[in-house]
Amino acid sequence: MAKQYMDMDTLKYLLYDVHDFEKVLSKERFADYDREAVDMFLDAVKDFSDKELYPTFMEMDETPAHFKDGQIHTHPVVGTVMKQGGELGLIAAAFSAEDGGLQMPHTAMTAAYYIMDAANNHLPGYLGLTQGAAELIVEFGSDALKEKYTPKMLTGEWAGTMCLTEPQAGSSLSDIVTTAYPQEDGSYKLKGQKIFISGGDHQHVDNVIHLVLARIEGAPAGTKGISLFVVPKNRIQDDGSLLENDVVTAGDYQKMGQKGYCTTHLMFGEQDDCQGWLVGEPNLGLKYMFLMMNGARIAVGRGAAAVCMAAYQASLAYAKERPQGRRVRNDGKKDVHEEPTLIINHPDVRRMLLLQKSISEGSLSLVALTALYHDLLHTTEDPEEKEKYHLLLELLTPICKTYPSEDGMRSISNGVQVLGGYGFCSEYILQQYYRDIRIFSIYEGTTGIQSLDLLGRKVAMKGGKAVMLLGNEIMQTIKEASAHEDLKGYAAKLGDRLKNAQEVLGHLSQFAMKGEFERYISDASIFMEYFSKIVVGWLWLQMASRAKQALLTGDGQYSTEFYESKVHTMKVYFKYELSRTASLADILMDADVLTIPDEEKVFA
Amino acid sequence: MAKQYMDMDTLKYLLYDVHDFEKVLSKERFADYDREAVDMFLDAVKDFSDKELYPTFMEMDETPAHFKDGQIHTHPVVGTVMKQGGELGLIAAAFSAEDGGLQMPHTAMTAAYYIMDAANNHLPGYLGLTQGAAELIVEFGSDALKEKYTPKMLTGEWAGTMCLTEPQAGSSLSDIVTTAYPQEDGSYKLKGQKIFISGGDHQHVDNVIHLVLARIEGAPAGTKGISLFVVPKNRIQDDGSLLENDVVTAGDYQKMGQKGYCTTHLMFGEQDDCQGWLVGEPNLGLKYMFLMMNGARIAVGRGAAAVCMAAYQASLAYAKERPQGRRVRNDGKKDVHEEPTLIINHPDVRRMLLLQKSISEGSLSLVALTALYHDLLHTTEDPEEKEKYHLLLELLTPICKTYPSEDGMRSISNGVQVLGGYGFCSEYILQQYYRDIRIFSIYEGTTGIQSLDLLGRKVAMKGGKAVMLLGNEIMQTIKEASAHEDLKGYAAKLGDRLKNAQEVLGHLSQFAMKGEFERYISDASIFMEYFSKIVVGWLWLQMASRAKQALLTGDGQYSTEFYESKVHTMKVYFKYELSRTASLADILMDADVLTIPDEEKVFA
Repeated sequence: MAKQYMDMDTLKYLLYDVHDFEKVLSKERFADYDREAVDMFLDAVKDFSDKELYPTFMEMDETPAHFKDGQIHTHPVVGTVMKQGGELGLIAAAFSAEDGGLQMPHTAMTAAYYIMDAANNHLPGYLGLTQGAAELIVEFGSDALKEKYTPKMLTGEWAGTMCLTEPQAGSSLSDIVTTAYPQEDGSYKLKGQKIFISGGDHQHVDNVIHLVLARIEGAPAGTKGISLFVVPKNRIQDDGSLLENDVVTAGDYQKMGQKGYCTTHLMFGEQDDCQGWLVGEPNLGLKYMFLMMNGARIAVGRGAAAVCMAAYQASLAYAKERPQGRRVRNDGKKDVHEEPTLIINHPDVRRMLLLQKSISEGSLSLVALTALYHDLLHTTEDPEEKEKYHLLLELLTPICKTYPSEDGMRSISNGVQVLGGYGFCSEYILQQYYRDIRIFSIYEGTTGIQSLDLLGRKVAMKGGKAVMLLGNEIMQTIKEASAHEDLKGYAAKLGDRLKNAQEVLGHLSQFAMKGEFERYISDASIFMEYFSKIVVGWLWLQMASRAKQALLTGDGQYSTEFYESKVHTMKVYFKYELSRTASLADILMDADVLTIPDEEKVFA
Repeated sequence: MAKQYMDMDTLKYLLYDVHDFEKVLSKERFADYDREAVDMFLDAVKDFSDKELYPTFMEMDETPAHFKDGQIHTHPVVGTVMKQGGELGLIAAAFSAEDGGLQMPHTAMTAAYYIMDAANNHLPGYLGLTQGAAELIVEFGSDALKEKYTPKMLTGEWAGTMCLTEPQAGSSLSDIVTTAYPQEDGSYKLKGQKIFISGGDHQHVDNVIHLVLARIEGAPAGTKGISLFVVPKNRIQDDGSLLENDVVTAGDYQKMGQKGYCTTHLMFGEQDDCQGWLVGEPNLGLKYMFLMMNGARIAVGRGAAAVCMAAYQASLAYAKERPQGRRVRNDGKKDVHEEPTLIINHPDVRRMLLLQKSISEGSLSLVALTALYHDLLHTTEDPEEKEKYHLLLELLTPICKTYPSEDGMRSISNGVQVLGGYGFCSEYILQQYYRDIRIFSIYEGTTGIQSLDLLGRKVAMKGGKAVMLLGNEIMQTIKEASAHEDLKGYAAKLGDRLKNAQEVLGHLSQFAMKGEFERYISDASIFMEYFSKIVVGWLWLQMASRAKQALLTGDGQYSTEFYESKVHTMKVYFKYELSRTASLADILMDADVLTIPDEEKVFA
């Protein structure tokens, strides 16, 4: 049996009791699903993860995916996961029935992938990127493209990738130079290089369908000249057989973590024989890609939240078993004749574990809610509701991507510390989580990019309406929590932080209004740190408030200890984490401008 | 030529201009040294590090030290370093002339090892532990032991180790069970196991001299029954030949970082033939070890500060060469026809680099000052001065060990982020620094242990006199800085933080006085985070103030840009780091008690 790497109770509690997932399930699109059906699906995914994913987790780190003889070699479980994951519906499930899918809510898929990420974060990307690539084709491609490519992608027979990054461009997509030359038959010949392509090639599928950003020859500069193409590794002949399409794997990237998830360098059209097909309209490629980007960013936050949770579970298990030292007595002395205590009884160890718990479960709540907004947005017809969920989703997405990635690193570092010297040793799993999680704040737009998105775009959307809507949601929770006598103080504290956030935004927006936009966004990453801690504070108050309610009514399905631990962890979060926002506000209001380039040689 | 991995100018500026190292050099003990002599020594160490240490840094990570056929195999450079390091005096230099040393100041040795650590942190430990082991023999051992073991240790022909940790005991040294059985000839037979022994065995020396903590049969329980023994890997026969001493290497620990520095598991006396010799008096072993512990802890802080600096230099070099994206214009738009800018010109990247600079150089200043206090303590005869430097050294040591280790991790994580996806890739060096630095907060007493030491012992020493003395030093700097008009605001800010620290300590000490000692120390790690940030704020104000002075008088030996960058980085530290202490004070004053074990199942 696999060790505990996540907590199904907390996952379900968050979905149903805290975030009212049944509201989503009641939508017509999801008529085939009720709580029981979703739970059965999640339990099946948990079982699959226990049996196939978790047992190979350390192995995949020890035998990294690697490039050899012109090809990428991955762990055999990648084949198992593509096949069995395909059969379980883990690629197809969220698609509409008419597109060959099961019309499952995005939230349920997020929960399913969360379980897999916690079991083995090197694997779900193979499925998830295939799903994402198929989604681009389904959403924006012609019927012909859809029919040709998506059926075998949805079953996992073929894999899919997203090819954005190029060596000279990095995060700056406006600078990509891969070129598509129009051909007489309506197809294009592609030429260019893509780097950092996750899941870009492996021996366990017959074909890999690349979704490639490129410029049609002569297209305008910048992001306005970027189009999207389907470029298969192997072209499909009229008789269904496959023919090499001049997509060459030039090498791979060896990394400090997530070593089982291959990262490749691809060359398109070195022999001038790489054929691609335009998806949708010319020059709208980046727009299409970004319409899918919320999903991809939620997925990164989800992965980070899951790794963070798995590390918490591992260090908690260790702390419950490892005796060492004695509790400090109130006279400051120790009695060496006493038996050693379990380390979970040392306040400092307990603080580290509770910090991990508060960040892990807070992150999961954030991911679940963001996914839920995605479903609500896509199932409502009411224009006001549509705008509301659209704005909330836009606002929360960069936070959902960033908070679990950034604070997840801190959380796992505490997990390593719980194990002391063993935390640094390869035979214990903590060091692997520590290395693996480091990628999440880089994937799909770094923390810097997410922070620019949050402060530079999302906060200002529709005159600040997204922030106002979020403020309303937070006020609602404050009101609800205030009904419980012993949550009142915490509700008031969150109210103060919300008010403070308005002051901070008021202060910053002066600079935007004065035309000092670079100054406005110069501390965007600090704003992200600040604002995300408040958002997670809100989610914790909500979790505690629902737990309190269940304790009062006595009709909750979980144990008293379960609910009490949620209230306790909220307090931990408020004391040790939410508190930190006061200083972050000071930083954001500080008059010193120190990071905008000028003539000074500040690095001398 | 080696890449830039540290900054000699800043090192020398801190030693001579900021911390007045010449005051130490003027002491009689160091009569053979002046600035020129020390600089020549440091330059020679830099040259040695450029040629031997830095070039093997990534190699040592790729080919870890490992256990095979009953023995540890390390990179060949370990042999070079023992030999050439011995010749350079890197083991012997700090010893008194009468003990075969060069009577060099501890501060100069610290600077020398800092350079080596920055070049390749896997190597200096082999020399440093040999020095430490020899120091224990010289300080506390008989003349016979001294004569027998130290000459070959000081030349690097033999290595030395410290054997403290045992499998069941970990940080809790009172629980060690390795036993020493008295023999008729006055020696002892040792029996027991030691784990996590750094540099415990390798093929490049003829002998390894272990300094082992063990209990003489029948000794009292706890720390009061621990004695110190010299236990060589090979016994020295009367004719000088070596005979195996039943010290067996049972295995090693593979780790996520510092892979070239072997970590071993040793078994003493499995064949009942392991002979050891008592150092000093019975049952005083832990006391002897702890008299050496300040030095060892300064060494860990030094290593962390150096790795942090090397990572800063690497990410700075990258940011100065890598073009990507465009500066945000003040209308919030970008011009895609502009050439991409270097990433150092993006405020967020610049902020991350300046944060690294502020933590790296602040850490170095802290390490240099702590080493200096060590020298001042050991060279003064004046009882009042002796007490002063003793107390300041005791207070700063846990901070010196912890701040560079903890904030060094944050700093390097920012360095990884500067490189984006490349930061995660093995071909770039940042990921290695990220992995390597993770050990420093665990070595020689974890952050939790250091924090207990700081708040539980050091703060309370002699009725709080250490804190008072430090407060005087800080006030002195505040006064000095206030003389410069544009430093006044920063001086005032530091003054506020100092006052706040007194309030925090007043608040906490209530609990100690009420007999709630466990509560008093329960947030010791937060206190460490809080107090160390204030201490480093002091060191930055001092650095800026001396720079300002040099700019005014114009007679400094460094460039205007050099001094201006110190003032600028102080401002960065004050804005982005010192600010955070306000929230940390809130946490320390918070009324919620959440981490002291009670009956609640808070982890349910």
